[in-house]
Amino acid sequence: MPGTDPHTVHRGLTRRGFLSGLGTLGVLGAAGVTASCADNREVPAAAAEDAPSTVPFDGAHQAGIATPPQSHNTTVAFSLRDGADRTTVQRLLRIWTGDARRLCAGTPVLADLEPELSTNPGNLTVTCGFGAGLYAAAGISDKAPSWLRPLPRFAADELDDTWGDRDIVLQICGDDRTTVSHALRVLVRGGADYVRPSWSQTGFLDIPVTDGEPGTPRNLFGFKDGTVNPRSDAELDAQVWNDDGGTCMIVRRIAFDMPEWESVDRSTREVAMGRTIVEGAPLSGGDEFADVDVDKVGDDGLPLIDAHSHVALATSRDGDAERMLRRAYNYDLPVTAGPAGLQDAELIDLSDTGLVFTCFQRDPRTSFIPVQRRLADGDRLNEWITHVGSAVFHVPGGTDGESYWGEDLLG
Amino acid sequence: MPGTDPHTVHRGLTRRGFLSGLGTLGVLGAAGVTASCADNREVPAAAAEDAPSTVPFDGAHQAGIATPPQSHNTTVAFSLRDGADRTTVQRLLRIWTGDARRLCAGTPVLADLEPELSTNPGNLTVTCGFGAGLYAAAGISDKAPSWLRPLPRFAADELDDTWGDRDIVLQICGDDRTTVSHALRVLVRGGADYVRPSWSQTGFLDIPVTDGEPGTPRNLFGFKDGTVNPRSDAELDAQVWNDDGGTCMIVRRIAFDMPEWESVDRSTREVAMGRTIVEGAPLSGGDEFADVDVDKVGDDGLPLIDAHSHVALATSRDGDAERMLRRAYNYDLPVTAGPAGLQDAELIDLSDTGLVFTCFQRDPRTSFIPVQRRLADGDRLNEWITHVGSAVFHVPGGTDGESYWGEDLLG
Repeated sequence: MPGTDPHTVHRGLTRRGFLSGLGTLGVLGAAGVTASCADNREVPAAAAEDAPSTVPFDGAHQAGIATPPQSHNTTVAFSLRDGADRTTVQRLLRIWTGDARRLCAGTPVLADLEPELSTNPGNLTVTCGFGAGLYAAAGISDKAPSWLRPLPRFAADELDDTWGDRDIVLQICGDDRTTVSHALRVLVRGGADYVRPSWSQTGFLDIPVTDGEPGTPRNLFGFKDGTVNPRSDAELDAQVWNDDGGTCMIVRRIAFDMPEWESVDRSTREVAMGRTIVEGAPLSGGDEFADVDVDKVGDDGLPLIDAHSHVALATSRDGDAERMLRRAYNYDLPVTAGPAGLQDAELIDLSDTGLVFTCFQRDPRTSFIPVQRRLADGDRLNEWITHVGSAVFHVPGGTDGESYWGEDLLG
Repeated sequence: MPGTDPHTVHRGLTRRGFLSGLGTLGVLGAAGVTASCADNREVPAAAAEDAPSTVPFDGAHQAGIATPPQSHNTTVAFSLRDGADRTTVQRLLRIWTGDARRLCAGTPVLADLEPELSTNPGNLTVTCGFGAGLYAAAGISDKAPSWLRPLPRFAADELDDTWGDRDIVLQICGDDRTTVSHALRVLVRGGADYVRPSWSQTGFLDIPVTDGEPGTPRNLFGFKDGTVNPRSDAELDAQVWNDDGGTCMIVRRIAFDMPEWESVDRSTREVAMGRTIVEGAPLSGGDEFADVDVDKVGDDGLPLIDAHSHVALATSRDGDAERMLRRAYNYDLPVTAGPAGLQDAELIDLSDTGLVFTCFQRDPRTSFIPVQRRLADGDRLNEWITHVGSAVFHVPGGTDGESYWGEDLLG
């Protein structure tokens, strides 16, 4: 289903925001009044203020991928219970799809005891991905994409299976944090007979606004994160969507060593990244969105972009094939000394910080894997970042209002 | 300093929001454009869009107390390093006050290597409280308020010292989560020679908006939380501020048992709370803000509000003396099975959920302690909530633009 609706945010807001790679509504925080602000020029304020902000659930592709990034992301991976088979998987997906469809519309699910926590969707999206274990349990491994397997081990990996491959994943994103929490509880309860949650990862991002235009959010290293992303339908079709309307979802957990990073001066940081900090522009010149020119040399004949910079290694060597859609969120979790006490050096840090780095691509074998192999082998940023979690899922295509996630595969 | 400026949010926005006990800007999420929205009717949009949202740092009282609640709260408690004395405490507070003043104005601190993460304050506030240990280290225990000691053990407590009393605390609140994270890092670094962070607690809240008016946020049990709060200057003077312009800050960590709560029907919930869920109105009648009438009986002669409901026990028996300002934030932390795996029952829950319940009052001996004693002994909600952390601090009065926190005490 190429060429059709990347999930734009309702109410005519997003074309510009989307084209700049960022969500206008993603900027606007928690509540309905924010939508009314953005819409003041288009609709009567009184009408707008009561209209919740929603992202269409059904469509050619699942929402939460091309959707402009919301403020909060909770991604939860589940294991199927013993004895799962095709019938139980169908039941689970029928329940979950129906519940998610209602939640994203701001409609409480049936038997919700806290319906008041469902009424401000805040651009809620729920995106579902299947692991290889789901295909095996359902007896349809022959239908699984050939790339659906654990990623190879990269040189710099220090993976913990705590955040590893699982049978099924839900990415829940929204601008109202309370609604995101409630949606997770609803879905955990709804699926309790069929799956056990195994890991969850939460993240946030804040989109800056200048002259009314959303900009690229920054990660906790202070760099803009998300500059290079597909934006047009054609780019999304070439880089993200497969023929089934689905895509490959990879969730890498990347830990940041904040104290070490903070000992590094700004010019060293820029060399390591290959971009300026203030503008996010490649060191080869131009503005933030200028093409990276890894071959360009300065007056002294030396490359302007260090060959081992993050940008030099991350830039596609193979046109669209190596490209992907990045949807990274910052995490910064509370840390406590605990009754037993931590070592002094750990306490000074008080930092459990990094990125829930989620990316979507047609085929990881031609995109994420070659790019990450280069980064793992040579990225100067590896001195301060460590990949500690890795999981791969097949996100099936979108639903039509009646169907459930993966019905074509399982039905 | 009675009767003076509770910290209103800049730009003429808050009087109405403040009087309704909620922050207009607290609603508006992350970025500068949101301020421009709220201000569209008052100032030219172009000017407003570039103006960051700030809360004045200096004033008769510290900000972050009467300030309308922002979206995010990170509260961090520190222990003084061995050998701390009055001189080192003075140095610490001079550094921290200066850094916090700049951060809250959207001005990077000196030598900040990530100044780009400081430029959108998003109503940032930093509130500092002193524990008894700080007074002792500085040799000024005679100046400590007589109420500054660990709270008594309450019947229902299951306290973990992980979140217990410490020497000094910073409550960092703001609408831009990235800015809050960065501010914490700046302050941890700035104080590293003098203090070690010992615990941190993070929380969020989302303020609903109806017809453009902010409402009371809900906690993760689905109840409105924060209905009863001082709002006028006179109420704040009577309930919160002491003669030094300061107050007593209590941080209780309250864990919610979500799975058990979710097994309870709505009428049982309302009886346990003593309020309706939808409106948050007392069961004795009236709207959300109606006075609670614990003596009122129904046609059957029975009390409308159960004597062991939360509201019946929490309602002041002693006028202003028992009242306090509640500034509670929800927490909902990621949970993982971990390599060793959790028990099935724990996995089903996937919930580390509750409240970072912070309250401010003149004297806990006449307010928090008698109220909490009643709640600990009899509150029906105790079946589903557990107090797991407790800490008390003296928040000294505000600063004047040059002075540092507690200078009157330490100088």
